[in-house]
Amino acid sequence: MHLNLFLSSLGHHEAAWRHPAANVEEIIDFAHLQGLAQKAERAKLDSLFLADRYAASRKAVKYGAVSGLEPLTLLSALSVVTERIGLIATVSTSFNEPFNVARRFASLDHLSQGRAGWNIITSGTDGEAQNFNLERIPDHHVRYERAQEFLDITLKLWDSWEADAIIHDKASGIYADNSKVHEINHKGKHFAVRGPLNLSRSPQGRPLLVQAGSSEDGKDFAAKYAEAIFTAQQSLSDAQSFYADVKARAAQFGRSPEQVIILPGICPIIGASEAEAKEKEAQLHELTHPAYSLLQLSNRIGFDLSSYPLDGPLPELPATEKIAGHQSRTQLIRDLAEREHLTIRQLLLRLAGGRGHKTIAGTAQQVADELEQWFTQDAADGFNIMPQLTNGGLDDFLDQVVPELQRRGLFRTEYTGKTLRDHYGLDSPVNSFAETHQYQ
Amino acid sequence: MHLNLFLSSLGHHEAAWRHPAANVEEIIDFAHLQGLAQKAERAKLDSLFLADRYAASRKAVKYGAVSGLEPLTLLSALSVVTERIGLIATVSTSFNEPFNVARRFASLDHLSQGRAGWNIITSGTDGEAQNFNLERIPDHHVRYERAQEFLDITLKLWDSWEADAIIHDKASGIYADNSKVHEINHKGKHFAVRGPLNLSRSPQGRPLLVQAGSSEDGKDFAAKYAEAIFTAQQSLSDAQSFYADVKARAAQFGRSPEQVIILPGICPIIGASEAEAKEKEAQLHELTHPAYSLLQLSNRIGFDLSSYPLDGPLPELPATEKIAGHQSRTQLIRDLAEREHLTIRQLLLRLAGGRGHKTIAGTAQQVADELEQWFTQDAADGFNIMPQLTNGGLDDFLDQVVPELQRRGLFRTEYTGKTLRDHYGLDSPVNSFAETHQYQ
Ligand SMILES: Cc1cc2nc3c(=O)[nH]c(=O)nc-3n(C[C@H](O)[C@H](O)[C@H](O)COP(=O)(O)O)c2cc1C
Ligand SMILES: Cc1cc2nc3c(=O)[nH]c(=O)nc-3n(C[C@H](O)[C@H](O)[C@H](O)COP(=O)(O)O)c2cc1C
Repeated sequence: MHLNLFLSSLGHHEAAWRHPAANVEEIIDFAHLQGLAQKAERAKLDSLFLADRYAASRKAVKYGAVSGLEPLTLLSALSVVTERIGLIATVSTSFNEPFNVARRFASLDHLSQGRAGWNIITSGTDGEAQNFNLERIPDHHVRYERAQEFLDITLKLWDSWEADAIIHDKASGIYADNSKVHEINHKGKHFAVRGPLNLSRSPQGRPLLVQAGSSEDGKDFAAKYAEAIFTAQQSLSDAQSFYADVKARAAQFGRSPEQVIILPGICPIIGASEAEAKEKEAQLHELTHPAYSLLQLSNRIGFDLSSYPLDGPLPELPATEKIAGHQSRTQLIRDLAEREHLTIRQLLLRLAGGRGHKTIAGTAQQVADELEQWFTQDAADGFNIMPQLTNGGLDDFLDQVVPELQRRGLFRTEYTGKTLRDHYGLDSPVNSFAETHQYQ
Repeated sequence: MHLNLFLSSLGHHEAAWRHPAANVEEIIDFAHLQGLAQKAERAKLDSLFLADRYAASRKAVKYGAVSGLEPLTLLSALSVVTERIGLIATVSTSFNEPFNVARRFASLDHLSQGRAGWNIITSGTDGEAQNFNLERIPDHHVRYERAQEFLDITLKLWDSWEADAIIHDKASGIYADNSKVHEINHKGKHFAVRGPLNLSRSPQGRPLLVQAGSSEDGKDFAAKYAEAIFTAQQSLSDAQSFYADVKARAAQFGRSPEQVIILPGICPIIGASEAEAKEKEAQLHELTHPAYSLLQLSNRIGFDLSSYPLDGPLPELPATEKIAGHQSRTQLIRDLAEREHLTIRQLLLRLAGGRGHKTIAGTAQQVADELEQWFTQDAADGFNIMPQLTNGGLDDFLDQVVPELQRRGLFRTEYTGKTLRDHYGLDSPVNSFAETHQYQ
């Protein structure tokens, strides 16, 4: 079983900052973040992960804690104070240039000696587009089309230096065998990039590729490129269908299904008894602010809910294919509200902790049971752990659930490999240029 | 006197990697870079600085060592292993988006507790443009126009959170006083950015702004925005004119000339005697490869010299205003060749060490004398130190010249401030939004 920590200074619950255990000063405090990363490494987690958004809304910051440290910057710093744990940064293909992104990940992979991962997103809100010269977020399929071209370029750039290109022969003055350094000469619809990269091949060859799109476009993209997939699933059966679907798509792209690691998000709340856990959850829920929750939900689904009564039902939303923003998440939210006949107010509470990810409030045993069930019943290869409250809650998971998973023989007790790709049991990528070479 | 280390793994001389003292494996080795940064900090230098280019040429990598770690990534990592020294990263306004750049520097400023600086460049070669969807580098004045708009946006983004905007009152659930969080609503020729930044105000308010343009456009840009200015000057009198010119321009923009720190580049080569120093220089020169030197020079001046005889003169170059790339450097090179009647081959050797920056080969006393002269005779507020060879050469400067400057009372013996801005004696920036506030 693989475990990724979705790192959050204060906690994933939207009211975590108001909890007595949270220290708001720690939100962008490096010493605090370093402590969290080191704890996760002591527990032998595969990786830690930082999400990202490219905007803050003036309305939302009134109620919601904002921690906007840029992921690659922060992970570069964390690479110095950790040795084994993988470091996964979110970077959007919609608001960046492929040359820069390829280079930053290669830099992090060098600095961390092979521990870099990239959570590839296309971003999904108008608020973000408005920080990048646009009025609205481009259509879903346009974003994925750009993402695909973006990936093709970065893959070639990472391959543009073969592993043995550098000779550095002081006597002759030859630094590199430049028959092993390649221009990529990409000219496409969205980009033109000549290459080569200005940085030699990194320890992993390229970062681990992670993706979280769960729409039709998203699943195809993930099946084609992603080596690890984040997803939000509310039930075992939904998770099983997603798992089967994506593994089958990967096979269609000629990939081995085992080389695609599926990691549903889990929001654990752990108590000495189930009742205590539920009470912890209720305590956090009480600290939510409906106005803020509503802003967050409206933003997530790209539909302004502010004029609808909180105690009424969710209004009819546009058809999934018509949604420009985050399609699969919007559908998950709509399905959830429908299935459980939730009012908007009830829905807001259901989303306050995990934004659509599954919450498990119970004892460490119960959490381990559920993870074991999903893992053994073809719903997950591991999990993306999203503690509701960091101080206390993260410790509960690492100190109680991880040892229980280890006792059951489900989780490693020591790192056996060095790179992030080693931890996930993934093959080293083959250099596309080097291959051509062999046949020349 | 202020001292900045222009950080280079192996050395600034283009043949440094071939020198017996250089260990080529150290070129992108974090432990090595960490050691250099810590040495510079022990010597109480104001800052260290990383240059950047956005391309590597297949032809050039045959002979030239390539270290392409992305500066902000590397400096984030170095921020963890240093405490006081300033960290200046080069980022181009031509190949990035202002929102991303504002955020990364704010992140580094938070992580380093107020030690971030930005060397603002516009980049100047076609090879770089070709990695960013363009055939040729945009015209000089277009690049500076974009740079100006870019700066205006980033300045507003850094001000978009007032210092006291965050209240985080757990009881009421109010996180920020959002009357102190501002949209910037920028709509200009090159960019449209709404803001606010998604990160709170950083310790320095914004990074130290550094710039190195020395053309007419460049000097105006520097005089308007830059707090520290890098420049290449071959002689005391040239440096004095530049110094007077830029300080006067700063005054014209309503700025205090003392708030603009001018730092010419110096390439020290230190020996127990002058003869020994000159011999060290000759030893490095012997390791150069004319084919490589010629590529570097052609690239720098944007003019292909490969068909001209090495033992003939520099051909006529286009008029300075017609040069799309690096104007002032091209002019410096042309002037140097003319003044000293150099053949191309001789010129290549003159540029091999400092690419146009001044080389001083002599005893530690002689180097200190020259720095003192420039400093006391209105040619410099400090220097940008570019050791020709890092292993050995950097140590010579830090262990011999710095103590000599300290004995003469010219350089600090302890850090007195905490931030990069403190080290350079610069005022804290006033928040443009907060000012408006007071008068409302
Ligand atoms: C665990 C997880 C993490 C995610 N992180 C981010 C993120 O940091 N930034 C972002 O804009 N979207 C993030 N997403 C959203 C996805 O990138 C994607 O937009 C979303 O899953 C909907 O994709 P779809 O439109 O293909 O259905 C994340 C999703 C999941 C499941
Ligand atoms: C010390 C110093 C460092 C510089 N660093 C860079 C750099 O990292 N990348 C770059 O493209 N140009 C760099 N430059 C070049 C300047 O940004 C600028 O293009 C050059 O000085 C010519 O400017 P001009 O066209 O305004 O004359 C540097 C210049 C100096 C003096």
